[in-house]
Amino acid sequence: MEVNTSENRIEGRNAVMEAFRAGRPVDKLFVLDGCQDGPVRSIVREAKKHDTIISFVTKERLDSISETGKHQGVIAVAASFEYSEVSDILRKAEEAGEAPFVFILDGIEDPHNLGAIIRTANLAGAHGVIIPKHRSALLTATVMRASAGALNYTPVAKVTNLVQTIKELKNEGLWFVCADMDGEVMYDLDLKGPVGLVVGNEGDGVSRLVREQCDMTASIPMKGDIDSLNASVAAGVLAYEIVRQRLRG
Amino acid sequence: MEVNTSENRIEGRNAVMEAFRAGRPVDKLFVLDGCQDGPVRSIVREAKKHDTIISFVTKERLDSISETGKHQGVIAVAASFEYSEVSDILRKAEEAGEAPFVFILDGIEDPHNLGAIIRTANLAGAHGVIIPKHRSALLTATVMRASAGALNYTPVAKVTNLVQTIKELKNEGLWFVCADMDGEVMYDLDLKGPVGLVVGNEGDGVSRLVREQCDMTASIPMKGDIDSLNASVAAGVLAYEIVRQRLRG
Repeated sequence: MEVNTSENRIEGRNAVMEAFRAGRPVDKLFVLDGCQDGPVRSIVREAKKHDTIISFVTKERLDSISETGKHQGVIAVAASFEYSEVSDILRKAEEAGEAPFVFILDGIEDPHNLGAIIRTANLAGAHGVIIPKHRSALLTATVMRASAGALNYTPVAKVTNLVQTIKELKNEGLWFVCADMDGEVMYDLDLKGPVGLVVGNEGDGVSRLVREQCDMTASIPMKGDIDSLNASVAAGVLAYEIVRQRLRG
Repeated sequence: MEVNTSENRIEGRNAVMEAFRAGRPVDKLFVLDGCQDGPVRSIVREAKKHDTIISFVTKERLDSISETGKHQGVIAVAASFEYSEVSDILRKAEEAGEAPFVFILDGIEDPHNLGAIIRTANLAGAHGVIIPKHRSALLTATVMRASAGALNYTPVAKVTNLVQTIKELKNEGLWFVCADMDGEVMYDLDLKGPVGLVVGNEGDGVSRLVREQCDMTASIPMKGDIDSLNASVAAGVLAYEIVRQRLRG
């Protein structure tokens, strides 16, 4: 995993728009105050969609921030949290001499939940987190903040097809346990080996195709009156059942 | 616990301001559009502080919403999530024939965390949640939403002095376990009896005076590179260690 937290300036309309389109995390966007051009408005719209902090500034300010002198009214400040590869995650487990422990997040959409889960993955000793390219929060500055810095240590891989990735990881010896209310009570499962913990979307849970790939389905015992735990709390409770079994058998 | 989710209109400047000051949860505030009076601006400021949804509407609209005809430019819609008493929580345990299991939240300030923890308390089978009057998020509409409805079932008591409340609950036979990184690993503690789980503030943890009242200090095993779990995740992991011990010994 390469993480570079130094500031990167992206200047000019095409470059900034391209950065958003490529899913590159943009911390902050400086926009020429009062500028109502179509392309600039599109960029502002993208920035809002991506939770980017927007500052409307004077031409003098923009010129002083610019490194190229060719900002065309927009300068983005990107912190490059680079995505890792799945192989980086496996290598991390190997280097630690531990059975792989991977989080698979099937469509966590709330950036606060995603950040909190990366934070949990780090502290629970997981070797990495895998998210799908679509239907998922991506690594924005909000996620970084919510991860309390864990994103600097825990590799996050973004994949096109979770089902395919799970199949490949099964070939590497991982077992997959899917969080589902209708599953077996988690205490009754053996979660000590190389394991992928699959947590679903806040509303819909784990999607059918992904669930069908899983070897086990684990449920958290629930006594109360409502339906489900917050997604990041559920991921935490399940992750710590894995930790407990690994520590205490 | 009495929960009344019917809409309650509060009309007129003094009444609305008083509702905010009393910490009464206000779901929505209707304000006469364009009204710039000092008192109305103060009310809008309070509403923003309390995460209330604000609608600026025409005089005609406001008149049509009004029940009294004397709105003076402001109508608040309050959902009355009433606070319970500590005795209600104990009664709930008694009626269920269970050893009391209570959450004590020593200064959870983020309403999303507070809501998520009330949600966890409900599903983990806790009988109630106790929060301090000061230095805590209160039961706003945001907390209600984040609790996913758990606030309708799990009583929340607001007390003036947590230390005093813990002392009283000790007289009722409860043991107190405090979440703290320097504590004993949670698996090594006996958490099966009547128990109060004390979780601290997001930044500072449990305050010294409250910690000194606790019988045990529990830590969650941490392997990672960062300091601590998200407060609602930590509360969930600890609560479910209590659940596991109660279910499986």
